[in-house]
Amino acid sequence: MTMRTSGSLLAAVALSVLCLPGSALTAQSGADVARAFREANEAALLAEFRELLSYPNRARDTEDINRAAAYIRDRLIEVGVESSLLRIEGAPPLVYGELMVPGAERTLGIYVHYDGQPVDPTNWTHPPFEPTLYTASMDAGGVPRAFPEPGDAVDPEWRIYARSAGDDKAPIAAILPVLRSFHEAGLTPSSNLIFFFDGEEEAGSAHLGQYMDMQRETLDDIDIWLFFDGPAHQSGRPQLTFGVRGAMGMEVTVYGATRNLHSGHYGNWAPDSGNILARLLATMKDDQGRVLVEGWYDTVEPIGEEERAALEGMPDYDAELKRELGMAHSEGEPASLPERLLLPALNIRGLTSGNTGELARNVIPNTAVASLGIRLVKGTEPDHMRQIIVDHIRAQGFHVVAEDPDMETRLRHPRIAKVTGGGGSPAARTAMADPYVQEVIAAARAAADRAFGQGSLVLAPGMGGTLPLHLFTDVAGKPAIIVPVANHDNNQHAPNENLRIANLWYAIDLYAALLTMPETVF
Amino acid sequence: MTMRTSGSLLAAVALSVLCLPGSALTAQSGADVARAFREANEAALLAEFRELLSYPNRARDTEDINRAAAYIRDRLIEVGVESSLLRIEGAPPLVYGELMVPGAERTLGIYVHYDGQPVDPTNWTHPPFEPTLYTASMDAGGVPRAFPEPGDAVDPEWRIYARSAGDDKAPIAAILPVLRSFHEAGLTPSSNLIFFFDGEEEAGSAHLGQYMDMQRETLDDIDIWLFFDGPAHQSGRPQLTFGVRGAMGMEVTVYGATRNLHSGHYGNWAPDSGNILARLLATMKDDQGRVLVEGWYDTVEPIGEEERAALEGMPDYDAELKRELGMAHSEGEPASLPERLLLPALNIRGLTSGNTGELARNVIPNTAVASLGIRLVKGTEPDHMRQIIVDHIRAQGFHVVAEDPDMETRLRHPRIAKVTGGGGSPAARTAMADPYVQEVIAAARAAADRAFGQGSLVLAPGMGGTLPLHLFTDVAGKPAIIVPVANHDNNQHAPNENLRIANLWYAIDLYAALLTMPETVF
Repeated sequence: MTMRTSGSLLAAVALSVLCLPGSALTAQSGADVARAFREANEAALLAEFRELLSYPNRARDTEDINRAAAYIRDRLIEVGVESSLLRIEGAPPLVYGELMVPGAERTLGIYVHYDGQPVDPTNWTHPPFEPTLYTASMDAGGVPRAFPEPGDAVDPEWRIYARSAGDDKAPIAAILPVLRSFHEAGLTPSSNLIFFFDGEEEAGSAHLGQYMDMQRETLDDIDIWLFFDGPAHQSGRPQLTFGVRGAMGMEVTVYGATRNLHSGHYGNWAPDSGNILARLLATMKDDQGRVLVEGWYDTVEPIGEEERAALEGMPDYDAELKRELGMAHSEGEPASLPERLLLPALNIRGLTSGNTGELARNVIPNTAVASLGIRLVKGTEPDHMRQIIVDHIRAQGFHVVAEDPDMETRLRHPRIAKVTGGGGSPAARTAMADPYVQEVIAAARAAADRAFGQGSLVLAPGMGGTLPLHLFTDVAGKPAIIVPVANHDNNQHAPNENLRIANLWYAIDLYAALLTMPETVF
Repeated sequence: MTMRTSGSLLAAVALSVLCLPGSALTAQSGADVARAFREANEAALLAEFRELLSYPNRARDTEDINRAAAYIRDRLIEVGVESSLLRIEGAPPLVYGELMVPGAERTLGIYVHYDGQPVDPTNWTHPPFEPTLYTASMDAGGVPRAFPEPGDAVDPEWRIYARSAGDDKAPIAAILPVLRSFHEAGLTPSSNLIFFFDGEEEAGSAHLGQYMDMQRETLDDIDIWLFFDGPAHQSGRPQLTFGVRGAMGMEVTVYGATRNLHSGHYGNWAPDSGNILARLLATMKDDQGRVLVEGWYDTVEPIGEEERAALEGMPDYDAELKRELGMAHSEGEPASLPERLLLPALNIRGLTSGNTGELARNVIPNTAVASLGIRLVKGTEPDHMRQIIVDHIRAQGFHVVAEDPDMETRLRHPRIAKVTGGGGSPAARTAMADPYVQEVIAAARAAADRAFGQGSLVLAPGMGGTLPLHLFTDVAGKPAIIVPVANHDNNQHAPNENLRIANLWYAIDLYAALLTMPETVF
């Protein structure tokens, strides 16, 4: 296709060549067009993905993230999207895009993040921003190979290794050819499209709400948000997810004497900070994984009939996963992992006191610290959950403080706990019964059937992780669902992140289906 | 005095000038002689101490520790001790010495260690082997000053800062002038003296038993061992101590999945290693500090009447110490610290799992580790105590292993604990009723009365720390007591270790009294 440099020019041209809405374009034809385009251009698509992956994209590296954003904006413009960068001082730009379809009655919001987790290159087999193609996953014995030349056959089991290959540049690499194929075929999406590409998701999306406010008028027209992020189900099957858990971190510090004491001179007399902490933590969860903090489960919003049915229809993957992870027991047995993800979780993500191993010394440490990792679900608000944890600690006889205690406080209270942290991201969930959601399910099911086989699509009522979905569901009041494409073993957030090529091809099928869903019938 | 270079030559000369035993030499005259010598030579004694402290003395620094040993051997020879270095391949030399007194009916064994704790010079105000004199302790606002010239007045509140100033070169710096003063005055000790200066106490005295075996025949003649080591009572008053606790380290590792898991994707389902560890540790000690391991206190050897009386006579220092250390509560209240030191202790000296603070991440750590610091008392043997801890862990439902579990073990057992460590040093105690002990108490009381005031000597049935005393009491079957001289705030094992000059003067008084105890009357 002809390259263009101006988004607005392209938008004008694009509209002129697009079909009328409600025309002969159907889901089937859209998917066929995109697939034919992909099959004819596989080597070129890998080359484009390679280029996209070569842009370093840590949110706080201002120059890098700006360059990455500009590159993506330019690519969107090339495929007919009116695109520009929204800017907030001190934040990565937001790549905004619109593709308005005259007469379309539905508007899809498409969320992607183009920033990536920080990297420590020393842990990577290849430099994280020098994409490397493998004949299979490294774990499965794959070896590096050259990128294919135009016309070369591409094996869908190949993997491309680079930071953000799975999380979250794969959706960008897939939506561009879909749009290009439509453009070249003179097809038009069946919905208006609004693109919202976040540049600091891995850094906490601190400015996302502000960016949404800046575009509120346009975003208000959106009927459903699609989150192009996350991996497939652990079984390898594609999935849709209808909610995320919230996340909150807290830290509890308990105190012994004002300084580390010699365990000989003072052991049996000085407070044993590690034991004090252990006794406190032991009151928080029983040995079956049930959290004992009063009220922990009381406000959990119950799931609906559709969600219950989806849960029952999910693959029974627990036994396999336990084998893989070396676990003879899971918390909350016999409840399955998907069920357990619909409940708020309390884990100890860190313990620190004195030293262990070679560095262990004969001291009684003056403090013991636990970092708590809390996952929230719909109905359990961060502030409330923080408060009931503090109440629980008080109920165990601790004087709770926000700063290290001074001498007077120390001498007044036998047990002192400093509690810090809290806040964090709330959970979000979109009802599966929502009619727009039902349309997306139908389109995704068709794409999954085609790419992975009949009945392969998994419907997961809630995923365990956290995305800023609540800004869309609760703040903006829209249905928002997660539409993952990456392979489950993409090593997201870790060294040697990768994407399986078959999953890129699936993404193209899927997005083509979503962009050509039949007109809303309700 | 004339300098000599040969130990055997000096010994011959020394014997020729010493008085006959049972002569006019009494405790009083010996103490007077030593004190007069000190008062006439204070600046010179500080200069000698300074030189002694300038020898680096970490046990594993072979060249350093050999140089320090040779230096001390030469100084002993100068004051009439037949001294030589005993050697075991790969171990620091043992500085051995004999001063035999014809006709003496009692033989004292004198244990000192000349090695010191490792240093990290960056934490020291001055280089640790460049002794620096202060006008008072740094904490009390002391400032550095020049070492005095001969004839200058010496303030007993001065402090000398250097590694090993308190632990344990002060006794060496004090015994040398005592012997020299006797030598110059033509006085003789009332006991045979055998010097046994350990060069690897701070590294665990691994070869001390072997060195004792090498000299077994001579050591068998010893009637009582005096351990010149340790600090004064926290109140600042001088003390004698009749026992030490043993020390044992153990480590417990519990397991979650085979790798750290994302707390979003798996939280509420994957085993929470931190919680598993906390629940285990919480079963080991109650909130009053009572260890709950079955049998923990069952084998503790009861103390005698003298010990009970001594306990009651000890200064009530708990309230002061708690104020200093910011503690509103002590383990085992209302039992006092000295009472608590007569019981075996179990402390958590380290906890490690995931990360806390800035480094905390949203993972469920795959392991959680606790390092246990155990202090033993007479009657609680290391192997037995290790076993009951393992039994306790088993009784909590854990499969106990010695190595990280393999996959098969993991999949068979829901709870797995790796337990490592154990062994360590046994405790030791010498009965205060022993007649040789009673003689030492009498001599020390006289010296303490003179240096610190009437009734100042504290008799502590057991100290909390650990020394290799059991080799002397249990293996060799001798009474052995600890005769400390360093100021309580000498920062032993820590940066800015120091000795208060008044404590060096007290050591001279004390050793003179001990070396001139009246003849045994039993």
